[in-house]
Amino acid sequence: MSGNSFGKLFTVTTFGESHGQALGAIVDGCPPGLSLTEADLQQDLDLRKPGTSRHTTQRREPDEVRILSGVFEGRTTGTPIGLLIENTDQRSKDYSKIKDQFRPAHADYTYMHKYGVRDYRGGGRSSARETAMRVAAGAIARKFLQERLGIRVRGYLSQLGPIVIDRLDWSQVHQNPFFCPDADRLQELEDYMDDLRKEGNSIGARINVVAEGVPPGLGEPVFDRLDADLAHALMSINAVKGVEIGAGFGSVTQKGTEHRDELTPDGFLSNNAGGVLGGISSGQPILASIALKPTSSLRLPGQSIDVHGNPVEVVTTGRHDPCVGIRATPIAEAMMAIVLMDHYLRHRAQNGDVQIDTPDIEKGRSRD
Amino acid sequence: MSGNSFGKLFTVTTFGESHGQALGAIVDGCPPGLSLTEADLQQDLDLRKPGTSRHTTQRREPDEVRILSGVFEGRTTGTPIGLLIENTDQRSKDYSKIKDQFRPAHADYTYMHKYGVRDYRGGGRSSARETAMRVAAGAIARKFLQERLGIRVRGYLSQLGPIVIDRLDWSQVHQNPFFCPDADRLQELEDYMDDLRKEGNSIGARINVVAEGVPPGLGEPVFDRLDADLAHALMSINAVKGVEIGAGFGSVTQKGTEHRDELTPDGFLSNNAGGVLGGISSGQPILASIALKPTSSLRLPGQSIDVHGNPVEVVTTGRHDPCVGIRATPIAEAMMAIVLMDHYLRHRAQNGDVQIDTPDIEKGRSRD
Amino acid sequence: MSGNSFGKLFTVTTFGESHGQALGAIVDGCPPGLSLTEADLQQDLDLRKPGTSRHTTQRREPDEVRILSGVFEGRTTGTPIGLLIENTDQRSKDYSKIKDQFRPAHADYTYMHKYGVRDYRGGGRSSARETAMRVAAGAIARKFLQERLGIRVRGYLSQLGPIVIDRLDWSQVHQNPFFCPDADRLQELEDYMDDLRKEGNSIGARINVVAEGVPPGLGEPVFDRLDADLAHALMSINAVKGVEIGAGFGSVTQKGTEHRDELTPDGFLSNNAGGVLGGISSGQPILASIALKPTSSLRLPGQSIDVHGNPVEVVTTGRHDPCVGIRATPIAEAMMAIVLMDHYLRHRAQNGDVQIDTPDIEKGRSRD
Amino acid sequence: MSGNSFGKLFTVTTFGESHGQALGAIVDGCPPGLSLTEADLQQDLDLRKPGTSRHTTQRREPDEVRILSGVFEGRTTGTPIGLLIENTDQRSKDYSKIKDQFRPAHADYTYMHKYGVRDYRGGGRSSARETAMRVAAGAIARKFLQERLGIRVRGYLSQLGPIVIDRLDWSQVHQNPFFCPDADRLQELEDYMDDLRKEGNSIGARINVVAEGVPPGLGEPVFDRLDADLAHALMSINAVKGVEIGAGFGSVTQKGTEHRDELTPDGFLSNNAGGVLGGISSGQPILASIALKPTSSLRLPGQSIDVHGNPVEVVTTGRHDPCVGIRATPIAEAMMAIVLMDHYLRHRAQNGDVQIDTPDIEKGRSRD
Repeated sequence: MSGNSFGKLFTVTTFGESHGQALGAIVDGCPPGLSLTEADLQQDLDLRKPGTSRHTTQRREPDEVRILSGVFEGRTTGTPIGLLIENTDQRSKDYSKIKDQFRPAHADYTYMHKYGVRDYRGGGRSSARETAMRVAAGAIARKFLQERLGIRVRGYLSQLGPIVIDRLDWSQVHQNPFFCPDADRLQELEDYMDDLRKEGNSIGARINVVAEGVPPGLGEPVFDRLDADLAHALMSINAVKGVEIGAGFGSVTQKGTEHRDELTPDGFLSNNAGGVLGGISSGQPILASIALKPTSSLRLPGQSIDVHGNPVEVVTTGRHDPCVGIRATPIAEAMMAIVLMDHYLRHRAQNGDVQIDTPDIEKGRSRD
Repeated sequence: MSGNSFGKLFTVTTFGESHGQALGAIVDGCPPGLSLTEADLQQDLDLRKPGTSRHTTQRREPDEVRILSGVFEGRTTGTPIGLLIENTDQRSKDYSKIKDQFRPAHADYTYMHKYGVRDYRGGGRSSARETAMRVAAGAIARKFLQERLGIRVRGYLSQLGPIVIDRLDWSQVHQNPFFCPDADRLQELEDYMDDLRKEGNSIGARINVVAEGVPPGLGEPVFDRLDADLAHALMSINAVKGVEIGAGFGSVTQKGTEHRDELTPDGFLSNNAGGVLGGISSGQPILASIALKPTSSLRLPGQSIDVHGNPVEVVTTGRHDPCVGIRATPIAEAMMAIVLMDHYLRHRAQNGDVQIDTPDIEKGRSRD
Repeated sequence: MSGNSFGKLFTVTTFGESHGQALGAIVDGCPPGLSLTEADLQQDLDLRKPGTSRHTTQRREPDEVRILSGVFEGRTTGTPIGLLIENTDQRSKDYSKIKDQFRPAHADYTYMHKYGVRDYRGGGRSSARETAMRVAAGAIARKFLQERLGIRVRGYLSQLGPIVIDRLDWSQVHQNPFFCPDADRLQELEDYMDDLRKEGNSIGARINVVAEGVPPGLGEPVFDRLDADLAHALMSINAVKGVEIGAGFGSVTQKGTEHRDELTPDGFLSNNAGGVLGGISSGQPILASIALKPTSSLRLPGQSIDVHGNPVEVVTTGRHDPCVGIRATPIAEAMMAIVLMDHYLRHRAQNGDVQIDTPDIEKGRSRD
Repeated sequence: MSGNSFGKLFTVTTFGESHGQALGAIVDGCPPGLSLTEADLQQDLDLRKPGTSRHTTQRREPDEVRILSGVFEGRTTGTPIGLLIENTDQRSKDYSKIKDQFRPAHADYTYMHKYGVRDYRGGGRSSARETAMRVAAGAIARKFLQERLGIRVRGYLSQLGPIVIDRLDWSQVHQNPFFCPDADRLQELEDYMDDLRKEGNSIGARINVVAEGVPPGLGEPVFDRLDADLAHALMSINAVKGVEIGAGFGSVTQKGTEHRDELTPDGFLSNNAGGVLGGISSGQPILASIALKPTSSLRLPGQSIDVHGNPVEVVTTGRHDPCVGIRATPIAEAMMAIVLMDHYLRHRAQNGDVQIDTPDIEKGRSRD
């Protein structure tokens, strides 16, 4: 209820601060019988972990996850899965300065107003380090969705600052540190990031996430629509400022004849809906897109105030990501997987094992 | 749990179908002692109700709400507030055709897959008629926020198809049927809508919603961030395909030095954050913007299939809104108010009546 | 969250005060396709309604329920079911006296402390009149359980004050106004109640509730055990002061060899567990027993204080039940049915439609 | 949602199996600013931990708890508190026999039906070992209640098999391994338990729990009554088969004049209500009593079946408690504290920091 849990039937609750002893999560509601090992989670965690290229923070965290419960003889038992990652690289940095300052565009100011106290070391609970547990939990959902239902959730970088990536070649996404689906744009991205680092600045990004193989019928009417839950999940990722489903803000200038995805016996003729109609999946690919703001930890000085209300000049010298969007792809995938898993279980509660095949009609054509 | 409730401490649960007997809601969690009458709710309902201009559906529904419980001698008692609106204009139309067709871009196809049965009359539960109850429930939240905390939630049309409204004059918003904040653009809107109606087509829109006077410290970390809950709430409105907070998708091309809202002892120097940092309110105005797709009920024929998978041509001849965005402003305001109310109660649970004054520093400058 | 909802997947939310305009409920989560009419609910409501014999309150309420949504062409659609009962017999009694008094053992004193205001007419929200909606909602659960799963939930009066009913003849239960399963004891009950009414006093009672045909495997580990949820549900009924499962408080003096229900290939040899082991159903009958306190609305004067703290003598002259236990059987059945329904849906979410047959082994012998 | 969480605003989620790697919990919703160290939790854990006398299981577990998050510089920060206890004494016992058997009155049979798989080592998730995390989490609630509100929660053994403890001397409770409040009965208890151990049998028990200093006004109407939540919490403890509030089952034979707790300006004249009226605290002590069944792990052979349905004779030779009631007192205290903490936060959400003093009137006389 204090906002550290997500999902109603597949529920992920996380704890942990950036520079605390450990991060942890409890995944409650995973059905029994799923084959699961720590390696299954580590695979996804390694995609998010820091320090894998010169374009991300240089904090060295192996992010090694332990499964402490809920798995027996290699299979889930239906009981809650306890996950733990010990923090290993909390440098004994001097925090005396940051302690009394509110860094602009960080949560320092708001946490202080909410709680009256705050763990100021590395952002404490507001640090994106927390998302490691989402990736670990999401890996469980992804495995279930893939193995049991043939649902594949994957994402990619579609824009980095001014650089818009138009071509989508899934085979390229994991071949570079940007999750960029177009190999021809890599040099451009490298150069842009190098310039940015020299400048001491940061930049925003856009990530697209797609779920294929989702059967029609997942979702709820009214408040917990599939797209509303996705918006909740994706907007809850650090630095996200916007969420689109399907045609998104493009719908504003569309006419009805243009937007409506016509159906034929051979499938849908377009996917402006992004795979969701009336809050419920249509069998087409689920399409979501998110905007991530530029990180606010900059070497370039900024104006702010201290806890006493006095003006201060803030310079952030720690280890930070110049583009938080770069490492956001696995996090967005994890959140989409958790939402789909949750809605699959809700669907099963209400309807039992109705045959959720994906007939020809749902194949349709998607935006991608 | 089936998605018909919203809010954890201020909880709104709705029921009702477009052409059923009645719509209803239970508002649970309203603190005792709030002065409340049916007129308080009716005021907001009248802004949303159909048939107020030639640009909206001609269905005649007075949307008269009854308060059935939870109010005694003019004040809330802390017990659940039961609300009821009887449907009066469910025309005894022949639904035999629509019964077997899946209208493109409607929830017909997905409801059928989810439930196996559906109330096909006027869209049943998927109809935007359900939002009347949100407006009624939201009116309670708005009254509490306004009277007790001085928080004002209000919205306006910022774009209708190609027509972008740049000027914001709050005094104009309720002077026209479009919720348009610029009187100089009304003729343009009228003409556009008249052409559209002749054409038999529909168009998308963008609505902005703003909450002023929100004290700093409302929100939760991680999953139930204030902005994530807003995204959930706003994306749950019929036809919404995108949600932005603050700079939104504009953040993608911003550099950190540009995006970060610097602070001075006199306040914030900008509001790219949209009033939320780390998921918690900063004391600046909360800024949200939503994209609404064009309605899919068109006189222009579209391809689809029937329940047997055969191709059909669908023409919708009923009473419909050519731009659902026009009536969406009160709904978006209601949902934002419900989210803020919920987070105010959560804040009070965790922190008690901490002094939530809005010192000078929070005044700052907003985007608007 | 304010305590007016019950159930996580089959969720019942109620509203309404004793002397307000109406009582209502929203039942969210009922699977689609269940045949349902108002008559199905009325049947159970008529068993609970007041004024059916001289031993209950003489308030005349037909308790006629309307189904306002969620049912289409005689079947549930999967959308929320809105229920409404208008109050018809709120006598325009003079409440000026009760308004300022705290009746002993009523909720007057505690509601005043909790809310600061209270609807003092007939107990307001604290009145057992609210349970009418539970019975209506429970009737939906009972119908589903009976038709789809062959589960039968039924209860009976097992003790009224000093009169312990030892014999259980189910065919008698609905043949008398006491829900007494032994016809030979009816005269004794009648006489006792007549004496009590003359005396102006009231008396406690014990009700047993049994669910037969429950498949093994329903329930959750740890906090939401089936028995824990039953305890919650049953203790939430007005006037209930104790809940037992199976051997209940008798277990305190049992040795392990006596308590443990041994199994053979032909079934369990006893049912001290009451059909629940480790929080999960065993396939044996679920056995629960509840204690109801005597009502506190008495003609015999009692000491109390008024809202100003002054001593007063309280005499209750209204229409009241001298033994609230008499009408409690349908309420207890309803609550047990709601719990079982909720756990059935939870089971289906986690395990899908696993074959939940009831093999010979589960038949066993029960306490009854 | 899968039953491993308790509490709506003060939420405890646990994980861990008897013979898994570790037990853990996340406590979400603890207000910021509470002084808290591991020693605060260890104190309560040491009261529950095994092996402290010859009358409990001889498994050697130090139950050393680590606080992994949510506490900074000795104070809670308002973020989730992660707790961890590593298991250290999971003997490499041969489980091949137990693996295929359903021990009578254990959860073996029901877990198998629910999940299809089970961690059979030491009962897995169904083991009372899980309650260690409840005690740790409860210690946080108890500290808050005591320090901030002056509420004291404590319990004692009131019956062990045939031995009823009538005298309540709180100072004795922690002076003996039975939590017995009467020093004169200790020899009797020792002798009884020694005989029982020789016999190879087990016995039931009754525990009373009392909360003093609870302000009036905590609780909710209808479903989440304070007593209903207590019943839920207490019945969720392993081996509990009955819960009473106040006069409990004694109410069945009480007349209204006897049961109703009259009020005078000097306070209540009795406490049959057990401190709860209409689901809301009255300011009197909260009184609850629970029945615990005898453990079913016995050296005396019992009939059962194996997973193939064949008859087997079960003999349990491991380390077990002959009376699980003996170590149940700290668990019951923890659960009551968690419920009160949760309702205190709910109260604060709805009413803010209303002055919750305990005027003279509430002191009253209690049953104890």
